[in-house]
Amino acid sequence: MAQQHMTQVLVSPNNLSRAPIQVGILGFGGLGQAASRVLALKTEMRLTAIADHKGYAHNPHGLSADASIAACHAHDSIGYLETDGNLSNNSIRELIHCAPDVEGYFLALPNLPNTFMASVAQQFINSGWQGVLVDAMKRTSAVEQMLALSDDLKTCGITYMTGCGATPGLLTAAAALAAQSFSEVHSVEITFGVGIANWEAYRATIREDIAHMPGYDVEAARAMTDAEVSALLDQTNGLLTLENMEHADDVMLELAGICDRDRVTVGGIVDTRNPKKPLSTNVQVTGRTFEGKRSTHTFTLGDETSMAANVCGPAFGYLKAGVELHRRGLHGVFTAAEVMPKFVR
Amino acid sequence: MAQQHMTQVLVSPNNLSRAPIQVGILGFGGLGQAASRVLALKTEMRLTAIADHKGYAHNPHGLSADASIAACHAHDSIGYLETDGNLSNNSIRELIHCAPDVEGYFLALPNLPNTFMASVAQQFINSGWQGVLVDAMKRTSAVEQMLALSDDLKTCGITYMTGCGATPGLLTAAAALAAQSFSEVHSVEITFGVGIANWEAYRATIREDIAHMPGYDVEAARAMTDAEVSALLDQTNGLLTLENMEHADDVMLELAGICDRDRVTVGGIVDTRNPKKPLSTNVQVTGRTFEGKRSTHTFTLGDETSMAANVCGPAFGYLKAGVELHRRGLHGVFTAAEVMPKFVR
Repeated sequence: MAQQHMTQVLVSPNNLSRAPIQVGILGFGGLGQAASRVLALKTEMRLTAIADHKGYAHNPHGLSADASIAACHAHDSIGYLETDGNLSNNSIRELIHCAPDVEGYFLALPNLPNTFMASVAQQFINSGWQGVLVDAMKRTSAVEQMLALSDDLKTCGITYMTGCGATPGLLTAAAALAAQSFSEVHSVEITFGVGIANWEAYRATIREDIAHMPGYDVEAARAMTDAEVSALLDQTNGLLTLENMEHADDVMLELAGICDRDRVTVGGIVDTRNPKKPLSTNVQVTGRTFEGKRSTHTFTLGDETSMAANVCGPAFGYLKAGVELHRRGLHGVFTAAEVMPKFVR
Repeated sequence: MAQQHMTQVLVSPNNLSRAPIQVGILGFGGLGQAASRVLALKTEMRLTAIADHKGYAHNPHGLSADASIAACHAHDSIGYLETDGNLSNNSIRELIHCAPDVEGYFLALPNLPNTFMASVAQQFINSGWQGVLVDAMKRTSAVEQMLALSDDLKTCGITYMTGCGATPGLLTAAAALAAQSFSEVHSVEITFGVGIANWEAYRATIREDIAHMPGYDVEAARAMTDAEVSALLDQTNGLLTLENMEHADDVMLELAGICDRDRVTVGGIVDTRNPKKPLSTNVQVTGRTFEGKRSTHTFTLGDETSMAANVCGPAFGYLKAGVELHRRGLHGVFTAAEVMPKFVR
């Protein structure tokens, strides 16, 4: 009898893997393409749907990451993918409609303008589709828009995981864990280093970073031509230095009851000309223990892990956790600070 | 309308705090006493029940940590606590019976013999009580005994959080998070440093550590007199060096689907004569990213955080998470690697 119980427990992590979870990716720039490569190594998830601004592709038996990326490089849209691709001016809406078996989508879309991701969530709410959505959004105001949709998402049976990339996401969760040793959390300091060999592979992400710099905002950064971005980077030797960024780690940790948002700071350095990180990405959580001692826990990411690995890995880990919540009937908005991501094999 | 949704979301972390969660502590040695001091700083939880091997105390309006600890120091049992204390040879069973409003217990008991904690869980199963149990057990074999009880615990409406101290617990969860950046996890290495000024305040814990040393086992360590422990420590200048310990981090990470248990190693150094840690406790997770890069994430605990802070904080964080699961009807055994602990204010 004990043996039987044990077996039942031991198979639980694999419950989800009986049939691969059908997963879609919305947005197929640098991040979306990296996400497709991450999924190509997974047996528990299968990439069956992709949409970008000009088209979409769908195949319940799976889409090839290589072929999808090649189609985009050749023709600038997944809609040109042979056999499975379709050009469309309403790619997300059409994909939702034609791919009802997709259980979860990673929204690898640039949130430009700052209301775009919320408008995509609204499209899902209107569609009648039920499942899991995951974003890796960065801004506090963007995550707050999603929190405001929580009741609507709950009502229509969608489990929405917000702020589930690297930061916010992996590092926010690490901060939430680190806080456990303390009776009071004094500060959470997130410092990231990003190195990319060629910023033109991450056009949207770089513009989101520029939008955090003094004198810029989301609209101004979005309107920049590639030549203007290049000119800006020439002035700084390719480095973007970011301080006191508007980052949703703050609202997420506040919502989790860990500390007020003004105790959370996020900053970092992006080197757009060197794949080596200018510093090791880390989060430091300082607090006071029940004995009155002040101390700091530190979580540091290995320099060899790319932004893509640190964003896409957690995003799919939270997607898997979201699928478990969804299958248990738990809908609405959850953040990376309150749910443990699940490892996707 | 959006404002209304937002308010509803924003109050969610405080849902549990409307009435403090009534919490009990089983075992009132060094760890249990530290746990009572941790609870004394919380408004979301109230300590209302304590049992040790000779008695118990219960007061739904709250027990004073100071008075409880003083009673134990003066008379060697909480049963001598004025007004609320009772001497008993069946303290746990009697306490469960007389304190039905306790929603969660922290089992701060030494797991000596190695089947003791499972026998306590069995007492709860037999009692008809429903609620949350949390342990901070260390050994793989002990956690496996609890996993074997999962169906019985589920049937009788108990949510049991196992391996929820520092290691396993906080560091296991940090490893589960760190794994998210990798397609494959090669190794999880946990190295702890513990410094205590006076081992006699942690008699049971030190014997559990000695039991991990070559030439010792749980029974042999348990049978040692204080004089024998002192003599052993004299030989090593007060240091206990532990390698390849039987630690449940391995089975917990395997169950979470992160890596096979043989890739998880736990070791450390305990200095029994110095509150300063001989090394900084850390977990290193090494893996391969989807791009084929090998890298290591590191989570390091601040030296000023004591073993008690790193065990009791997470234990109550998992207890709060367990209460949420329990109130949603999710019963059975959960580990620290699969649930995010909640911050207890």
